[in-house]
Amino acid sequence: MSALSSTAQRSDPVPPHLAELVGELVGELGPRVLLDPAQLAEHSRDASRAQPVGAALAVVAATCTDDVSAALRWASRHRVKVSVRGAGSGLAGGAVAYPDGLVISTAAMRRIVHLDPEAMLVDVEAGVVTADVDAAAAEHGLMYAPDPASHRWSTIGGNIATNAGGLRCVRHGVTADHVAALEVVLASGDVIRTGARTRKDVVGYDLTRLFVGSEGTLGVVTGATLRLRPRPTGPERTFRAVFGSLVDAGRAVTALAASGARPEVLELMDRASALAVEAHHPTGLDLRDSAAVLVGQFLGRNAEQDARTAESVCRAHGVQRVEVAQSDDLLEARRVAGRVLSAAGLRVSCDVGVPVPRLAEMFTAIAQISAEEGVLMPTFAHAGDGNLHPSVIVDGDDDAGRAHAEHVLDRVADAALALGGTISGEHGVGSLKRHALPRQLDDATHAAHRLVKDAFDPLGILTPQRAV
Amino acid sequence: MSALSSTAQRSDPVPPHLAELVGELVGELGPRVLLDPAQLAEHSRDASRAQPVGAALAVVAATCTDDVSAALRWASRHRVKVSVRGAGSGLAGGAVAYPDGLVISTAAMRRIVHLDPEAMLVDVEAGVVTADVDAAAAEHGLMYAPDPASHRWSTIGGNIATNAGGLRCVRHGVTADHVAALEVVLASGDVIRTGARTRKDVVGYDLTRLFVGSEGTLGVVTGATLRLRPRPTGPERTFRAVFGSLVDAGRAVTALAASGARPEVLELMDRASALAVEAHHPTGLDLRDSAAVLVGQFLGRNAEQDARTAESVCRAHGVQRVEVAQSDDLLEARRVAGRVLSAAGLRVSCDVGVPVPRLAEMFTAIAQISAEEGVLMPTFAHAGDGNLHPSVIVDGDDDAGRAHAEHVLDRVADAALALGGTISGEHGVGSLKRHALPRQLDDATHAAHRLVKDAFDPLGILTPQRAV
Repeated sequence: MSALSSTAQRSDPVPPHLAELVGELVGELGPRVLLDPAQLAEHSRDASRAQPVGAALAVVAATCTDDVSAALRWASRHRVKVSVRGAGSGLAGGAVAYPDGLVISTAAMRRIVHLDPEAMLVDVEAGVVTADVDAAAAEHGLMYAPDPASHRWSTIGGNIATNAGGLRCVRHGVTADHVAALEVVLASGDVIRTGARTRKDVVGYDLTRLFVGSEGTLGVVTGATLRLRPRPTGPERTFRAVFGSLVDAGRAVTALAASGARPEVLELMDRASALAVEAHHPTGLDLRDSAAVLVGQFLGRNAEQDARTAESVCRAHGVQRVEVAQSDDLLEARRVAGRVLSAAGLRVSCDVGVPVPRLAEMFTAIAQISAEEGVLMPTFAHAGDGNLHPSVIVDGDDDAGRAHAEHVLDRVADAALALGGTISGEHGVGSLKRHALPRQLDDATHAAHRLVKDAFDPLGILTPQRAV
Repeated sequence: MSALSSTAQRSDPVPPHLAELVGELVGELGPRVLLDPAQLAEHSRDASRAQPVGAALAVVAATCTDDVSAALRWASRHRVKVSVRGAGSGLAGGAVAYPDGLVISTAAMRRIVHLDPEAMLVDVEAGVVTADVDAAAAEHGLMYAPDPASHRWSTIGGNIATNAGGLRCVRHGVTADHVAALEVVLASGDVIRTGARTRKDVVGYDLTRLFVGSEGTLGVVTGATLRLRPRPTGPERTFRAVFGSLVDAGRAVTALAASGARPEVLELMDRASALAVEAHHPTGLDLRDSAAVLVGQFLGRNAEQDARTAESVCRAHGVQRVEVAQSDDLLEARRVAGRVLSAAGLRVSCDVGVPVPRLAEMFTAIAQISAEEGVLMPTFAHAGDGNLHPSVIVDGDDDAGRAHAEHVLDRVADAALALGGTISGEHGVGSLKRHALPRQLDDATHAAHRLVKDAFDPLGILTPQRAV
């Protein structure tokens, strides 16, 4: 936090012309405008390693759509740069404050407005916590499927901004697949309503999908209509399989995808991740001669049959040891992996994706980079989606180490692209990966993104210089 | 065809300044430029009732992306309006030619470039026929799920342009859910590549989804990477249930959606449709005292159990008669419904959607409009998606009758909107429904659509004045 305080808190007073602007904003929004330096600092960064380079002018803690609209009209009028945040759990630096910029927070907009169990839709404000939506759905035997690791504190607005993923994506899809309609405030302050309450709708462009994943660069999402599903009931089976080779593990994942078995969760940990987790959270896992651990969960009426399919697929692909259980226990190690690795040192983590059949090659490429660069790189993956999270463990405050880690992760991104992959599967581009965008998008395609950005934000005030 | 010939064929010669432009195009694209009046006429309309109001200048029968690019550069240079077509099976007038406009056809681009069974992806050119993709997938135990009624002749490019639906959507989603990546030629002639080959990708905006369903107004899709799925195997069960009340049938559909049973197909026919189909295609269906017939199909390992669930859900909701079979036979009546109704007279058909629990109310609203307007309106629906296709049967060449039918369908659209629905679930807006757009989209939201349109097509040459 020392780095934060030194950059995001202002040492000099706010210059008079800026103070006048802030006064105007306070005149419009009163106590929803936060000006206390500690509050500004608290709202100035996200959960990534990206750091604000200067203090924001003010935070608008919006309580309703009109507050957001007023804030954006003010920002447009005065050409003030705006960052947008929910819980600040983003991992790509998308919500970091701009120097002398405005922060709009939708975290106080946390009403679940209406849940319609028959239509399996729920209308929420943007600041509702993800897990709270799922809990409300559960009362009706329904589920809100997306479950990013941060789901207990991240907001729906943030999930939508980043098109958040999670463990259950392999079965149920990403956040975008569960958003039926949006209320969005444009940079101009105008409020639009995208999408529909129907399952199918082809009227106009799919602006809903355009805003999902746009990382605050096209508008501020203030409300959403989310799709719910029947909550899986019945038996639960988990399996855990230890492989002596990454290639075998990768082939097992591909074969499982083709088998018709439908895992609710399917995760792959390399040896370094598995060892670190087992050391911290012992489960009796035998990792001798292991290269990778595959864990999966099946829920519902086909759980037993699918778990047996998974077991035999693993056996057909050279598994060393495989076990099946009737509880969630075997998954627990995977669930704590992120925390355990963070505790092991400063963890510079990353998020890349490859087509599922290239998963083993990507793990192998990471191992090679790790060896060549002389850094420890534990990696786990949402295997069923081909989405990997390699980390580089570096010493705490070592600037050279951090710079080296960034270089290493750039090599990882290049390796993913070489395998037909993506530089981000679920965390977003934000500020941390924007430099790498031209490696994935050719010039004409990148220019097409900028056409959209410029159309919605002609003044360039909304999360500028990020994401696209 | 008489109306077509009189409007889409030119009686006077092409004026010299236009002839010069055409000469330039022929110089660039040679025999891919079609100029024969019969060919122009053939490429000037779609499968809807929309009529061209004047003859096109030329058709470019593109054989590759470069052809499309050259054609669009030419059109941009000379401000020539462009319509785009695959098989011409569209139902909303989106592909109808513009007077003195250019038609770009991608129908000759019909290569299946590469099918990767492990990644479950297939790269195709835009002109590939939908059913051919599914057939190619079947060779590997896979399926391409979207199956619009036209799937035996419609092209993937057209399916993408309209975000086509079909019977299997209730289980597998619409076309957009199966498109991983696109190659698109912009109005400028620039070629962009959207999306990725991964299951998850959050780099940049979701331009893939933006182009899917954009009805040729933002660019010309020339290639696509489509997602395949494991082909369902194992048992097949169909069921057919006759209800004495639309309300009961609608409640049964809602209850079935909540039951966790996963129909591959779930269709509802009102009494008028069912009677017309049964008269033409007798299946021994007893329609005495009936108000609606619900038919469904289940495939795979849960088919038997799900069919029994469907049966008991129907019994719990006042069904008159319900039968379960082990073959496709009970669905056949639904499959021929469109053809049978067309044979019954000029069929002015429509496409609206409502939230599933409002299905019965929408059928009732249609019945009321039918009674008030004194027209026969047989209606069937993709019940599981809440997507209805009411038709108005009018006398063949009766202009007043057609105008009245349009008025009736506008009332239907209003009724769908009043129930929280959409004026188009799967056919698109095209030219036929554009007048109704402001009833669904408020001014600010409509303006946001125009921002996108203007960004991609600043000269207004690409399918102008349609869709948005």
